[in-house]
Amino acid sequence: MRWLRIRNPAGEAMRRLSSKKVIYHFSPKNRPAYTVKSGERVIVETRDCFSGKAKGPKDLFEDIAMGAVNPATGPIALEGLVAGETLSVSIDGIKCGKTGVIMCSPDLGILGRDVRRARTKIVPIKGSRALFSDEIAIELNPHVGVIGVSPREGKVPVYYPGDFGGNMDTVEVCEGSRVHLPTFVDGGMVSLGDVHAAMGDGEVCGTAIEVAAEVQARFSKAEDLELRRPMVETSTEWISYAAAETLDKAAKLATSDLVRFMSNRLGMDFEDAYMLASVAADLKISQVVDPLMAARMSISKKYL
Amino acid sequence: MRWLRIRNPAGEAMRRLSSKKVIYHFSPKNRPAYTVKSGERVIVETRDCFSGKAKGPKDLFEDIAMGAVNPATGPIALEGLVAGETLSVSIDGIKCGKTGVIMCSPDLGILGRDVRRARTKIVPIKGSRALFSDEIAIELNPHVGVIGVSPREGKVPVYYPGDFGGNMDTVEVCEGSRVHLPTFVDGGMVSLGDVHAAMGDGEVCGTAIEVAAEVQARFSKAEDLELRRPMVETSTEWISYAAAETLDKAAKLATSDLVRFMSNRLGMDFEDAYMLASVAADLKISQVVDPLMAARMSISKKYL
Repeated sequence: MRWLRIRNPAGEAMRRLSSKKVIYHFSPKNRPAYTVKSGERVIVETRDCFSGKAKGPKDLFEDIAMGAVNPATGPIALEGLVAGETLSVSIDGIKCGKTGVIMCSPDLGILGRDVRRARTKIVPIKGSRALFSDEIAIELNPHVGVIGVSPREGKVPVYYPGDFGGNMDTVEVCEGSRVHLPTFVDGGMVSLGDVHAAMGDGEVCGTAIEVAAEVQARFSKAEDLELRRPMVETSTEWISYAAAETLDKAAKLATSDLVRFMSNRLGMDFEDAYMLASVAADLKISQVVDPLMAARMSISKKYL
Repeated sequence: MRWLRIRNPAGEAMRRLSSKKVIYHFSPKNRPAYTVKSGERVIVETRDCFSGKAKGPKDLFEDIAMGAVNPATGPIALEGLVAGETLSVSIDGIKCGKTGVIMCSPDLGILGRDVRRARTKIVPIKGSRALFSDEIAIELNPHVGVIGVSPREGKVPVYYPGDFGGNMDTVEVCEGSRVHLPTFVDGGMVSLGDVHAAMGDGEVCGTAIEVAAEVQARFSKAEDLELRRPMVETSTEWISYAAAETLDKAAKLATSDLVRFMSNRLGMDFEDAYMLASVAADLKISQVVDPLMAARMSISKKYL
């Protein structure tokens, strides 16, 4: 494994949270595998979404993915966090494995009907690129695909997104960003996994460049942020996020969340915030291939 | 009016296509208002989407927009173009008016139900910014909202997008880009209008910063491009575009078009192009507020 674009404070001893402890469902009944203090810097080891079972081009989606996909390391309890408070996860670095996997398969992804045969592509990762073929090297944009807390109720498979986060598949969940999550149980119980070395918005074929990884992270309580759904904060942007049965519904929720956030921050009425969003904020697609579709909306911090 | 970010070849006499000749419907029955030669550089004058009727904050959407919105200058026939060929429009510059208009109104836009009162905001444009308020200056991204040819059939209001282009509301239809359009009648009969000084992806409140403008453009035949729907080509990207009843359907069409385009260009089979798109191409939202929703998908030219 190689550290990619990581700021690793010299000499600081970091606790490692092993990927031996994973969940396959988000549930309020989950018990903590790890407990961290606010601001403690840890390394979260994550398996790739196929748990390392795809080793070569003969390991096809239908053979592997029928079992357990998207294992997420955790749950990680934040000491002192009370249900209902907002949990912030700072992503300080992502170190991707040396090999990535991309798969396509009949009925997988937005054009799944057009896929005639399953294919698994093993992609070597060299520096900041993944070698898709002899001719094509993909620029990496490493990010954490799954990051979620225990939901209010139910037993939600880890490949679902939702108001609790989960399979967010959002490229800004990357080094230098913070993910703010509403919580529903004490400690929050966040789990991380499904790191992508690279993905385009949409993740249209159903997989990204899937890698095992090590994620350097800190956890804390956000004091001034009340959320119903996740928000992502980069160095330059605020981003709302919503998942729903259709992209149209997800887009509406993400817009509503961001407009209300802007209205609060700017002390503007709804109408002005709505108009400002229309001319200055971008409504985007996170993914269109999970059981729920996900949209997000971003506004530059320079306007807030 | 001020020229914004424009490359205006010194001394070249350019024909002006006046905005006195506009259409309110795209139709195969439309007759040409202007005829241009391939490569001829012209200035297309465009009215703002409210035909200049919004002069102050008391001119509200319901009073103005019930009439004729989005007048598009044209139709412009390209000499020698035969129905079925692909028409390319190079946008060489966009000169925005000195004043922009933003409106919101009950039932307008993706959150229209939450709007309690209509509002019209007149926005002065200074240099590369629009003054939204005393505190907030919006960075401009001038682009052409409406650009479309005569469709195969029907009489389509000019505020609709479709396979013939129309109300594309796509921010990359800007200076330095080319819009490639399928054609259905001889000459193509392209019309342009609805320039936005600034818009975020989604155009969520239903309006952008609406301006009158002058668009410097050239028209030609694309020799090696067979299209069913528009494509936009920037200096760095190829972008597919599709409009449909839902965002989900539009996203699927835009993905299908781009994957097939990549497959052809790269001599790759469908499966490889699908996987490459998933990890390197971005599925995006153009707008969610017109009668049809529009999505697009972009791939960097460095991969093609």
